[in-house]
Amino acid sequence: MGVIGAIEAVEALRDAGVTPRHPVEVMVFTNEEGTSFHRWLLGSRAVAGLWEPEDFAAVDDDGTSLTDTLPSIGGNISRVDAARRRPEELACYLELHIEQGPTLHRGGFPIGVVTGITGRSVYHVDIVGEANHAGTTPMALRRDAMSAAAQIALAVRRIAGEMEVCRVGTVGSMDVHPNAGNVIPGRVQMGVEFRDERMESLAAAEVELRRTAEEVGHAEQVAVAVTAQRNTPSVPVSGNMQQLIADATGMAGLEHVSLPSGAGHDAQAIAAITPAAMVFVPSVGGISHAPAEHTTPEDCANGAQVLLNALLLADER
Amino acid sequence: MGVIGAIEAVEALRDAGVTPRHPVEVMVFTNEEGTSFHRWLLGSRAVAGLWEPEDFAAVDDDGTSLTDTLPSIGGNISRVDAARRRPEELACYLELHIEQGPTLHRGGFPIGVVTGITGRSVYHVDIVGEANHAGTTPMALRRDAMSAAAQIALAVRRIAGEMEVCRVGTVGSMDVHPNAGNVIPGRVQMGVEFRDERMESLAAAEVELRRTAEEVGHAEQVAVAVTAQRNTPSVPVSGNMQQLIADATGMAGLEHVSLPSGAGHDAQAIAAITPAAMVFVPSVGGISHAPAEHTTPEDCANGAQVLLNALLLADER
Repeated sequence: MGVIGAIEAVEALRDAGVTPRHPVEVMVFTNEEGTSFHRWLLGSRAVAGLWEPEDFAAVDDDGTSLTDTLPSIGGNISRVDAARRRPEELACYLELHIEQGPTLHRGGFPIGVVTGITGRSVYHVDIVGEANHAGTTPMALRRDAMSAAAQIALAVRRIAGEMEVCRVGTVGSMDVHPNAGNVIPGRVQMGVEFRDERMESLAAAEVELRRTAEEVGHAEQVAVAVTAQRNTPSVPVSGNMQQLIADATGMAGLEHVSLPSGAGHDAQAIAAITPAAMVFVPSVGGISHAPAEHTTPEDCANGAQVLLNALLLADER
Repeated sequence: MGVIGAIEAVEALRDAGVTPRHPVEVMVFTNEEGTSFHRWLLGSRAVAGLWEPEDFAAVDDDGTSLTDTLPSIGGNISRVDAARRRPEELACYLELHIEQGPTLHRGGFPIGVVTGITGRSVYHVDIVGEANHAGTTPMALRRDAMSAAAQIALAVRRIAGEMEVCRVGTVGSMDVHPNAGNVIPGRVQMGVEFRDERMESLAAAEVELRRTAEEVGHAEQVAVAVTAQRNTPSVPVSGNMQQLIADATGMAGLEHVSLPSGAGHDAQAIAAITPAAMVFVPSVGGISHAPAEHTTPEDCANGAQVLLNALLLADER
């Protein structure tokens, strides 16, 4: 929707015979998700000059390198730097996107003004107890990695939920060994993440996670290792750029609500080289990354209209 | 140790020139564990006439049938019934085994008199919530299958532990879908089991499990289905047969403790056709089914001696 909406906005300018003061460019980025090669924002990070050595060395799960794959879509890894844009070439960047969450749909707001893209801390939690016979090992003598894992999983939920230390906390993955019905799990590995706009909230969540891990490890007589894997800083949207989208929404006669983006977006890479803003439209039921995801045609049209208005306002300001 | 101990006992009778009143037979069963074909006690259940249609149809994980595999160890599935023994042919059955748990080793007892083999109830718990974006879905709007699974796992531990509804309860396996760091789990499947000598305790544990599943499902807005998969009845050892082992232990100048067997054994199949008793010896640290499992030579010798004594006493009585 972001790509088609941008093309529509530029076509509308042309149809209306409007020539803006600034050149307008539609940017289409490949590989925002980073699913195949486990390296995300490859297109927008190339434009922002933010490729890392790991990007150049990326391989997919079948062992095929990104280097060998790029030519099949007309690319050339040795020329990635040619995509780079300099801050002095750009006045600002606007991105239209589906919310990927339920806030707009549930609140009945047609437009969301993004206040920032949340930071994200990812941890690997490795719990080592002792695998043993589920029938013969008395409850009091167990070193059950599963019991410890369950307590830590509930603590992650509590840290973000009841305690409100940070906005969201999730245990998305759990791998149990040996994962057999009649064996007390000897080892459990968990993937934990926290997200928040405030980096100090993420730091506080980490303190709580490590405190819980130590407490549970001691009580359950298991070893718990918490390893920080990724710490993506939050990217705030400036007050001016938020105001631009709010004004563009008002021009369209629509209501808006301001909200952070819990998901990552190309805007966070481009924000490194120019002021960036984002327009959100509702997703029915907040469903994302699933076949049932749906945004109504009316909401899509509203989003494109607000993008066009924002373009005109930005050109003026 | 059970096989070698039995052969030793018979050799000792022969070496001493003792001819018992009853014929003595050493029975060696194959496939007690049932790992390859997922059907256990195949040898002893053949002797007891307890094969089920599923045993005849068994295939391993590579798709090879038991029918085709048996000839490689000299067997023939069409002649399984020839192994069957009738109650009137047998006076009693004795089995020597390593405890597979920590009770004897920790208590300093050289011999355990088995009071019975615990019953076992196995359940499959299937939790269906809604997979969604871990960054954009507010905590209050989640239908997180992992949170529900963690609560049920801790409840299983509590049912057997703090609440003492039954002797042991274990969540040995947990499979999470999609099991990705940045996705709220939409589905978790768990393997749960309870064991106890008293079948009414197992029934009470099931009631608690189902009550918890309903409560958690309601609170977390997820569907929880608890399916009973297996319900193996407990097999008590008669007072006479327990006394036989206790007396045989006393004859050897050793102390014993009476304890249930949390693991399953061939004795539970044979108990269907003749009075059965079991002698346990300690396992260092209670380790079982692991390379580190160890029973001292002295404990092995004690076990064989008690088996021999029990044989002589049983012959006499």
